[in-house]
Parts: sequence; C-alpha cells; structure tokens
Amino acid sequence: MHFAPRWLALAGLALVTTATSVSAQTGTKIDSTNIRKIYDEALLRGQSYENLRQLTGTIGGRLSGSPQAEKAVQWGKVTMEKLGLDRVYLQEVMVPHWVRGPKEKAQIKPAKGKGIALNVCALGGSVGTNGKMQAGVVEVDSWQELAAMPDDKVKGKFIFYNRPMNPTFIETGRAYGDAGDQRRRGAIEAAKRGAIGALVRSLSLAHDDFPHTGTMSYDEQVKKVPAAALSTNDADELSQLLKADPGLTVELEMGCQQLPEVKSYNVIGEIKGSKYPDEIISVGGHLDSWDLAQGAHDDGTGCVQSMEVLRLLKATGLRPERTVRAVLFMNEENGTRGGNKYAELAKAANEKHLAAMESDGGGFTPRGFGIEGSPEVVKKVQQWSPLFAPYKSEEIGPGHGGTDIGPLKEQVKALIGYECDDQRYFDIHHTAADTFDKVNRRELELGGASMAALIYLMSKYGL
Amino acid sequence: MHFAPRWLALAGLALVTTATSVSAQTGTKIDSTNIRKIYDEALLRGQSYENLRQLTGTIGGRLSGSPQAEKAVQWGKVTMEKLGLDRVYLQEVMVPHWVRGPKEKAQIKPAKGKGIALNVCALGGSVGTNGKMQAGVVEVDSWQELAAMPDDKVKGKFIFYNRPMNPTFIETGRAYGDAGDQRRRGAIEAAKRGAIGALVRSLSLAHDDFPHTGTMSYDEQVKKVPAAALSTNDADELSQLLKADPGLTVELEMGCQQLPEVKSYNVIGEIKGSKYPDEIISVGGHLDSWDLAQGAHDDGTGCVQSMEVLRLLKATGLRPERTVRAVLFMNEENGTRGGNKYAELAKAANEKHLAAMESDGGGFTPRGFGIEGSPEVVKKVQQWSPLFAPYKSEEIGPGHGGTDIGPLKEQVKALIGYECDDQRYFDIHHTAADTFDKVNRRELELGGASMAALIYLMSKYGL
Repeated sequence: MHFAPRWLALAGLALVTTATSVSAQTGTKIDSTNIRKIYDEALLRGQSYENLRQLTGTIGGRLSGSPQAEKAVQWGKVTMEKLGLDRVYLQEVMVPHWVRGPKEKAQIKPAKGKGIALNVCALGGSVGTNGKMQAGVVEVDSWQELAAMPDDKVKGKFIFYNRPMNPTFIETGRAYGDAGDQRRRGAIEAAKRGAIGALVRSLSLAHDDFPHTGTMSYDEQVKKVPAAALSTNDADELSQLLKADPGLTVELEMGCQQLPEVKSYNVIGEIKGSKYPDEIISVGGHLDSWDLAQGAHDDGTGCVQSMEVLRLLKATGLRPERTVRAVLFMNEENGTRGGNKYAELAKAANEKHLAAMESDGGGFTPRGFGIEGSPEVVKKVQQWSPLFAPYKSEEIGPGHGGTDIGPLKEQVKALIGYECDDQRYFDIHHTAADTFDKVNRRELELGGASMAALIYLMSKYGL
Repeated sequence: MHFAPRWLALAGLALVTTATSVSAQTGTKIDSTNIRKIYDEALLRGQSYENLRQLTGTIGGRLSGSPQAEKAVQWGKVTMEKLGLDRVYLQEVMVPHWVRGPKEKAQIKPAKGKGIALNVCALGGSVGTNGKMQAGVVEVDSWQELAAMPDDKVKGKFIFYNRPMNPTFIETGRAYGDAGDQRRRGAIEAAKRGAIGALVRSLSLAHDDFPHTGTMSYDEQVKKVPAAALSTNDADELSQLLKADPGLTVELEMGCQQLPEVKSYNVIGEIKGSKYPDEIISVGGHLDSWDLAQGAHDDGTGCVQSMEVLRLLKATGLRPERTVRAVLFMNEENGTRGGNKYAELAKAANEKHLAAMESDGGGFTPRGFGIEGSPEVVKKVQQWSPLFAPYKSEEIGPGHGGTDIGPLKEQVKALIGYECDDQRYFDIHHTAADTFDKVNRRELELGGASMAALIYLMSKYGL
C-alpha cells in the first residue's frame, strides 16, 4: 500500500543532477503534459493487449517460413491499416525455413532397468537424427573441460553441456549471454571431437520441465550433428544419474530439417513527420517467434507495443515532427534477415535515419532505455530522464539496442533498447510456456507508453 | 537481451548527486562487498521461496482466529527455530474471529427471464443476510451522488458502489487508496440512507471474475447491513443491465458472522546485536491472510522475506551490531491487533527501537524503500542508495512504512516500507487467485536480499 508520491522526491533529485547541462528544450511543461496524455491514452484505451491476444491466440507460434508466419504478416498489415497511418507496406525478404517435424523424443537408458523419458526439443537449425540415435553421454561444464578430454572418451558420444545460467547476475540477460555459447557452439565443438550429437541444458533460471529451443550454429567445415535442449530438471537428473551410472546411454529421435528458403516480409507502418518528413525514427519488434510457443513475450509484445506507439501518437493528436515508422521484423530468431534487409534498403534509398528503437526483452514493467550511441547522444537522451520519473521508467544510460535494429547502426545516431523488468523473462523464453496469460495488461501498456513518450521527444527535438 | 552494465552509469549519477553530503561511512568498499555476499547467498541458496511453498501449500488461507492461522503461528515458530537464532518467542494477542460460513451466493433477477449468477464474496466483517435478501439496486459513483438521491429512491435497496480504481495512477496503491472508501464506508453510508445492503465493485485494476474481499467498517450508531464485493466483470454487467432494466433486483445470501475474540500470537525471532544489543531494528510481514486465498503475495511473501533477512545475516556471517528482529504480525487484515500489541509491549518494556521495516506489497521485483521519518533520516538512508544501484533497488525516498509497524511510529526514527513492482498486485489481492504460482522465485529472493542489505547498513551505522 504505497500512497506516498515517492517519485516526486526522485524527480526532484534527477532535476538537480542534470541542472548544469539541462537546456531550455528539455523537461518543459508542455512535454510533461503531452507525455501524461500518452500514458493516459495507453492506460485508459490501450490496444496492445487486445492485439496481442489476437496474435497469440489466433496465430500462435510463427517461425520464419511457416504458414503461421505468413498469417502474422497479413495480420500485422491489416492491423496497421486500421490505424489510419500515412503508409503501410510490406518489405520482401527471403528467410530460412527450418521445420521441427514430429515431436522429438529422448530417453535415458540406464545400464539396468527401464528407460527414463527426457523433456527435449531440437535446437533451431539442428539436423535431424535420421531415425533413433543412441550413445553414451559425456558431461562438460566448459570448453576447457571438453578440450582436455582424450579422444576415446568423447568419440561416438553425446556431449552434454550442463553449465547453468549464473543466478547471481542481477541482469538475467547477462546470465543468458554468459551461458549461451553452449547452445550456439555446442554442436560444432562436439563434432570437432568426433561426438555424434550435443545435449544442451536449457537456458533458463527456473527449475522446471520445459525444454528451451533457440538458434544454434554449424560450421560448414565441420560435420553437422544433431543438437537438442533438455529441460533444467532433466539436465539435473541426467547429471545425477551419470554420476551413479557413467555407462548409461541416451536415445534421441528428432525429425527436424532445413527446407529451401521462402519469401517473407517485414511489415511497416508510417506516420509522416510534419516538419522533417525525411528524418526517420523507427521502432520495432520481431514478428517471427519460435514454433514451440505462442511467442507472447518473445516478441509479440514488442510488435504490439511498436504499433501502439503509432496509435498513441495519433490518438493524442501529437503528430510527430519527424517521420515515425513501426517495423515488425521477420526472422529475428534464426537469421536476422528482416533486420538486415531493412537496413540494406534504407541505405540503398539514402534514407536519413535518426534513431531506431527495439522492444525485445518481454512486455514486463518498464524500467527505462539502453542507448547505443556516442556519449553526447547518450547524455542528450538522459536529460529527458526526469520526464519519465513519474512513470518509474527513468533509467536511461548506455546499453544495447536490439538484434533487428543492429544492422542500422552505421546509419543512425542511436540504437535504443526498450528495457523492462527482466527477472521472469528467461523462465519462459523459447518454450511452450511463453503464452498470452503470462503478460500483464498494465505492464504491457505502460511499456508502449514509455516507448511512445521517448519517440515523441526525439521527433520533436532530434538527437 | 540487455548485456550492457547500464547500472554503472546510474550508480555514477547517484554518487555525484550525493557527493556533497556523503560521509566516509557510506558506500565503503567493505559494505559493497558484504551486500554482494547477501545477494549471492539469496540467489544461490535462498530459502524464502521454499518456505512460502510450505506456508501456502500446507496451510493456505489463514484469517485471524481460524485454525489455519494457529497452524501458521506454529509453522512460523518452528521455521524460525531451525534458523539457530538467539531467541524465538510468541507474543500473545486477542484477535477478532469473523467467519465467512458457506460460500456466498448472489444473482441478478431481471424483470423478465432467468436469474444471472454473480461472483460475490462478503467483505470482511460484514454481517450475514440471515437467509436470502432481495431488493432493487441503485448504482452510485460517488458519495455526492448518493447524498443527492431522494430517500424514496434508496430506501430498502442495495447501494451499488461502482467507481473503478483509476487506471491512470501509475502507483497502483494510490488507485487502491482512492477507490477504497467505497469498501470501507459503503455499508455505513448505505444504512444511513435506509438501504438494506452494499454491493461494492471489487478493488482491482483487472477485468475478471474474482471477487476481492477486504475489511469494511460499521458505525456502532448505525444499523449494520450486509456488504458484498462483486467481481469487476460482474460489476460491469450489473451496471449494463441496470441501464436497460432499472427495476431489476439482486438476491444475496451470505452466512458470515462475527464470533467471540480468540487468543492468537505474533511470532518473533531475534539475533542479538554484537555491539548495541539494546537497540532494535525490526522487520516484518503479516502472518494472517484473507480466507479466500492462499495469501501468497499478501502477505506470505513478507513473512518469508523477514525470516530470510535473519537467515541471510547468519549465513553470510554478518552478525549485526544492533539487534535485528523478524516479526510475523497477526491480524493485519482485520484489526491490526498484532501490530498494536507489539508496539504496546515494546513501549511497556522501554525497548529502544531504532527502525521498523515492513514488506506488505507483494513479492515482486524490488524497486527500493519508502521512508517515514524526519527529512534528516530520509536523507541518511538515501545516501546508501548507490549501494543498491547494482541490484536495481535504489529508489529510496519519503514513503509509507506499513500497517503493522505504524503503531511503532513514536518509538522509532524510521518506519520503512519495502517497495517492489506494484503493477500486478491488485489483480490478485484478497482473492482466490493470490496463490503460490503467482510468485517468482528470483523476484522474491531479490526482495529479501534488498531488505537484509538495508538492515545490515542500519545495524552498522544506526540512523
């Protein structure tokens, strides 16, 4: 029960902090009034939650190349057309088409006794097993441990990468990055040593039965061996059993395969700038998701928030002075083809991009923004921090933009990552549990409002 | 995917802010190392989540006076005894004993056609209906609207208080406070006008079917009439139907009643201060909950976090210089008897309380602390803010302490409210949906660590 307007004190603090560098253009009364309008519209009449319900409920998982991804493209286009924008269009892009095939199966076969089923899923991009594969298992926690093993210990085996995400990192994305090498390079390093496959502990801070998929890599010079994720509970169990029974085997069956590339699209909607129509600020999320999930937090939320930014600017009558574009990128999960194509076409057309923002860390309670740009640009955005203090979204500092907007880096003054509470994100990331019911309406709508507020400021003042 | 240590920039900012007033004792290297130890212990070996699983799973809802509340007292005592504290004891207190009786029922009876069932629950403390009550319904949004109504319009009717919580307040507790008068005073004001009962829109920002209970009041000078909460969906439906059919009636049946007071207990565990054993810092949550729910976020989380504070101090070897007490208060929900008793006995024993902290806003991601104290004390605690920046828990400012610690106000330098993300809290507050599965392990454990860190600092430096 917190009734006291604690943020008043915080806002005051922030104003003092920036007093020496504050310019007349920042933190004006009219800006604070307009930003309040944006938040009110989002909290009273926000549409992103209902849009997300549609996307996740009627289309669901939408991996690049799938019929669902194409449905999502059409849905995105129709949904933006209803907003009465100046322009809505598709941007063609060829994408990879990997399919999982029938549900994967795996079991532990102890030396004695019955098999123990494992919760597994193929990592995205993996080759299939071509029937059943059965082999012994070698557990490793690090590349050094793998490198130090004699050939005869690893040849013909599954390499089981079981280093957990580090729970002591406060930023969960850091723990994800830190443990993610196992998923990305696991199959390559296993094959180099003559192993027949990779089993990878799911990238999750939770202890549960969901296997987490995600992209993995091959090296064209190295044999392609299958790679599967185990749920964290099952990784713990396998590790335990291995200690007692090092001779156990695992049987794995996966029917996944890579099909020829197919044509797909980025979906783009635009409000022309009233004063500087040639200067562009883009805001986006990615429309594709993994196939196991509804793709609610990853990244349905980023898509509906990006569309909501345009709706909020229109509904509040705050026509931007610079052009604002919402981009629903295709293929973030396994190729970044949409992001690359967008940047390539922007460059070819000699477009002047001022900034690009991305929301791809879930639809949780906003905290602020991470800015990838020069120290001067970071400082400029930080000056607006007091305007976000009433909304507890004022943490602005150097940070990471986003995968889809990364290719735009040379063309913009700033890549901006929308940042929200990150504690629960990796519990559900890339699993069947990433569903609509995990998204809270207020948290989602507050996020869209924060994004719209910063875009309003950039469209007015530039960078 | 936020890998950049954005908090470094923020921490820098905060240090600059307080540079003029920072003293040698704040923000020392050893403090930051010790606080890191506390967080590591919580994130690697935290026990509050498993304790909460026990409390909610094996005992569940535990309204004052119920057998479950008594089980919770025993559970709290045994759980603290396992921590190897210097002292664990119970503090006797008489508490009200209200019982809901069989599940409440209500239906809308339209002029024509079949009855429509309503999701209702008695407000805590309400009298029963003594069989079925049936009456017309008058909807009001404000006291003014009720006051302006002629007697013949309201007499013998149900007054239907349907003013929603204001979704544009960013702090949800403010919206709760703002709309809560309807629940607290609804029955009194209805009876004053000759109405036979109060129907109150649930205090929730969500649109769903859960009725939210919570305490209500009577005035001994005014007739006691029954008061029930409607789910927000059903409040909307009733309001809609009333427009088309103002002559509809509602039938309500509630078997709740007030029984004689019973004996219960606060549960207290203590680590004696190594240097100043007579100076006491208390930290608590409330052990009772509403009967409908498991009482997970309200306030199982505050109880397990308070016990965890003691465990963290012991496990890290950071013996506090001042005495630290965890207090599991009884009867926050409908009487604050435990809080009153604790303060009364502390005063009678001439104890020297330095500060009291409470966690009663759920077990969500920490944001910081609200301080109820002199400006000097607030400033002193704010000086430690940079130490919390790496944990994103650095929002420290004037604020509200907590209901249970409120009675201690005259005896302490500061009442401190633990503050966490508040966006989802009122969706489940006082309903059957306040269950263990709504609590995230990391969010909960981070909260306990934040609380322990501030208590460590106060126990070292005083206030």
